[in-house]
Amino acid sequence: MMLVQASIGMGVHVHVLDPDPNCSCHALAASHTIGSFKDFGTVLEFGRRFKHITVEIEAVNTAALHQLVSEGVNVYPRPEHLELIQDKGKQKAWYSALGLPTSPYVITQTAAEVLSITEYLPAAHKLCREGYDGKGVVIIHDQTEVSLAFDGPAVLEKLVDIDREFSILIARNADGSVAMYPAVEQVFHPTRHVLEYLLAPAELPAAVVDQASDIAQKVVRELDYVGLLAIEFFLSKSGEVLINEMAPRPHNSGHHTIKACHTSQFEQHIRAVLNMPLGSTEQHSAAAILNVLGQDGSAGLAAYQGLEDALATEGVYPFLYGKQETRPFRKMGHVTVVASTRDALLAKLKGLEVSALASQ
Amino acid sequence: MMLVQASIGMGVHVHVLDPDPNCSCHALAASHTIGSFKDFGTVLEFGRRFKHITVEIEAVNTAALHQLVSEGVNVYPRPEHLELIQDKGKQKAWYSALGLPTSPYVITQTAAEVLSITEYLPAAHKLCREGYDGKGVVIIHDQTEVSLAFDGPAVLEKLVDIDREFSILIARNADGSVAMYPAVEQVFHPTRHVLEYLLAPAELPAAVVDQASDIAQKVVRELDYVGLLAIEFFLSKSGEVLINEMAPRPHNSGHHTIKACHTSQFEQHIRAVLNMPLGSTEQHSAAAILNVLGQDGSAGLAAYQGLEDALATEGVYPFLYGKQETRPFRKMGHVTVVASTRDALLAKLKGLEVSALASQ
Repeated sequence: MMLVQASIGMGVHVHVLDPDPNCSCHALAASHTIGSFKDFGTVLEFGRRFKHITVEIEAVNTAALHQLVSEGVNVYPRPEHLELIQDKGKQKAWYSALGLPTSPYVITQTAAEVLSITEYLPAAHKLCREGYDGKGVVIIHDQTEVSLAFDGPAVLEKLVDIDREFSILIARNADGSVAMYPAVEQVFHPTRHVLEYLLAPAELPAAVVDQASDIAQKVVRELDYVGLLAIEFFLSKSGEVLINEMAPRPHNSGHHTIKACHTSQFEQHIRAVLNMPLGSTEQHSAAAILNVLGQDGSAGLAAYQGLEDALATEGVYPFLYGKQETRPFRKMGHVTVVASTRDALLAKLKGLEVSALASQ
Repeated sequence: MMLVQASIGMGVHVHVLDPDPNCSCHALAASHTIGSFKDFGTVLEFGRRFKHITVEIEAVNTAALHQLVSEGVNVYPRPEHLELIQDKGKQKAWYSALGLPTSPYVITQTAAEVLSITEYLPAAHKLCREGYDGKGVVIIHDQTEVSLAFDGPAVLEKLVDIDREFSILIARNADGSVAMYPAVEQVFHPTRHVLEYLLAPAELPAAVVDQASDIAQKVVRELDYVGLLAIEFFLSKSGEVLINEMAPRPHNSGHHTIKACHTSQFEQHIRAVLNMPLGSTEQHSAAAILNVLGQDGSAGLAAYQGLEDALATEGVYPFLYGKQETRPFRKMGHVTVVASTRDALLAKLKGLEVSALASQ
C-alpha cells in the first residue's frame, strides 16, 4: 500500500499479487492478481507479465523467482538473498563466515539435542524457517524449560544481555550506489517490556552508530544486494554491537521516513530495484512511530479509538492500513509523530495511543 | 491523483468522476466513473452515491451540487463559492464589496464598450466565465488594440505595475479552524517573462506577508469557506498588496507541500472537507517547484528529457502526472526541489529542467 503510494508520480505502475481479495492495495494498484505468492506456478505466471519484480514479504516462492531471473526478468531483492533471509540458520552462518558480529548460536535438528548443549542457556530457540514475530520462537531459560524446544532445524541462540535495540535501513541499486538512513531505536515500555515506540534518529554513542553503519555497508556490498535492506541490531550491556536479523524490504522501523525524510523508504526501494539514482536519506525532523494495534479481546469490523485526539495534535499523523477486521494485537496501522526537536517529540508521545476495536 | 495519494492511510476512499477513460487516477481511485462533471444529471447521479463531495476543478456543474446539498450531501467547497470563483466579474465585485484590495476594474458586456472607457487602458480584458491560463484573456495596451476585446460579460482590469506575484494557501474546516501555509513566490524569467519556478517560503517584506495573511483570513471567514483555498496576490511597484484571483482547491503553487511541509495541501484539503482537525502547515525545508512542460513543436506519446539528471541531484524530486500524450507546453508534471537553506536551493535550480517530448 505504501509502496503504491510512493510510486505515484514516479512514472511507475505497480501490479500486485496477493491472495486476499480485499488486500490494502486492491483498488490502488494498477492491477491486483488474487493468488498465492508461495505457489511456483502462480508466481511464475504473474512475473512473466512484467519487466521488474520486487517483494514486500520474504516468504515468497523463490524457485519461481530464480526461473524468472533466468528468463530475463529483473528480480530484486535477488531470490538468493530472500532464501538466505528465509532461513535463520543460513543467515547466522553467513554472518559467522564473514566475521560479522552476532550472538553465539548452534543449529539444532531435534528438541532433544538442546539437552546436550545447555551451556547455551538461557537461549532463544528459533525455527529456521517460517518463524515470525513470536511464532516459531521460544525462550528457554534453563534445563527445566527444555520441553519448549522445537523439533526440526532451528537456531539455539544464546540470550544477549541487551542494553538497546536499533535498526539501520540501507539501500543499494544495481550500479552499486548505497544510501543509508539514520539509525532507528526501539523503545520498550519500562515495566510491560513490549515495544512502546520507535525513535529516529536513535540516540546512541557515535562509535556504536559508526560500527553498525560499517557492518551495514559490508553486508550489502558482500551480498551484492539490490533493494532496501533493514538490519536489526542489539547493543549489549557490555557494549558489543551484534546483528540480530535482516529484512529484505521496506521495514516497520522505517515508516517515519514518509514524513521525516526527503525520500521515503518506499520511494528508495523503488529507486533501488529499478536502478535509478538513490534519493537523499537526510532526516529533516525528529520522528517516532507507534503501532496501531487491535485491542485485546476485541475482534470484528474495525473502528478506532484515539484517532480524533491524534489528528488534533500538531505533528501527529495516523496511517491506517485499511484492514477491515480487527483482532487482538493485529497491526492495523501506525502513527508517525514529527517534531523539530527530540524533547518536543517526547512530549507529544506522552499519553498518545491509537488502537482498533470491533465496532458495535 | 495527488489527492488520492494523500488519502492513502487516512481511512478515506476516493471515487472519481472524470470524462477521460485514461485520466491520471483511473487505476488509483476506489472507482472511476467516466462522465462529464459539467453535466447536471451526471454530477447528481454520481454525487448521490456518497456522503462527501469535493472538486479539483472549479468548472463543475454547481446546480447539481446545490441539489446534492439540499439532499444532505456534504459538498465542500460550497457550490456558491465555486460559482463566485467561476465568474471573474462576481469575484471582483465581492472583493470590492468587502473592501478587499484588488486592481481597478469595470464590467463590460460588449467589445465596443471598451472604446468608451479607455481610461482603464492599458488593461487585461478577461471573459467572466470559462477563461483559463491565457484562454479568454487579452492584454489591451491602447486604443489601437481595442479590436482584441471580447463580446459578452468580461472584466476590464487596469494593468498593475507588478513588482512580485505570490500566493497564499489557506484551509478552513466546517468548525471554523483555519491553517495557512507560508507564502509562495512566483519567479519569472528575467528576459523571457514566463514563469520560471515557484519559491517557498516567499522572500517578501514581513509587512507584505502580514497584510496578505490578514486578507486571506478575512476571505475564508467572510465566505464561511470550507476546504483549501489558494489566493494569488500582486505586490505593486508602489507597495500595494492586491488580490489577483482565487482557486477553490489544491493549487499548482502548493505542490511543494508534499515534500517540504509536514501536512501536504492535499491531505489538508481532505482534512478540511471532512471536518477533521487541520494539520501543521510548518515548512521544514526551503522548496521550489518547476513545471514539466511539453516541448514546443512536439506532440505524441510522452518521453522525458532531463529526468535522469534530476533524479541524480540530491533533493530533486520529479513528479509526473501520468499523461500519455505530450503536446506543446502541456503540463506533464512538476519537479520539487528541497534544501535546508534558500542559497542551497537556488544553487540546485541552476540549469535544472525536465521536459516532455514525443518518443520516436
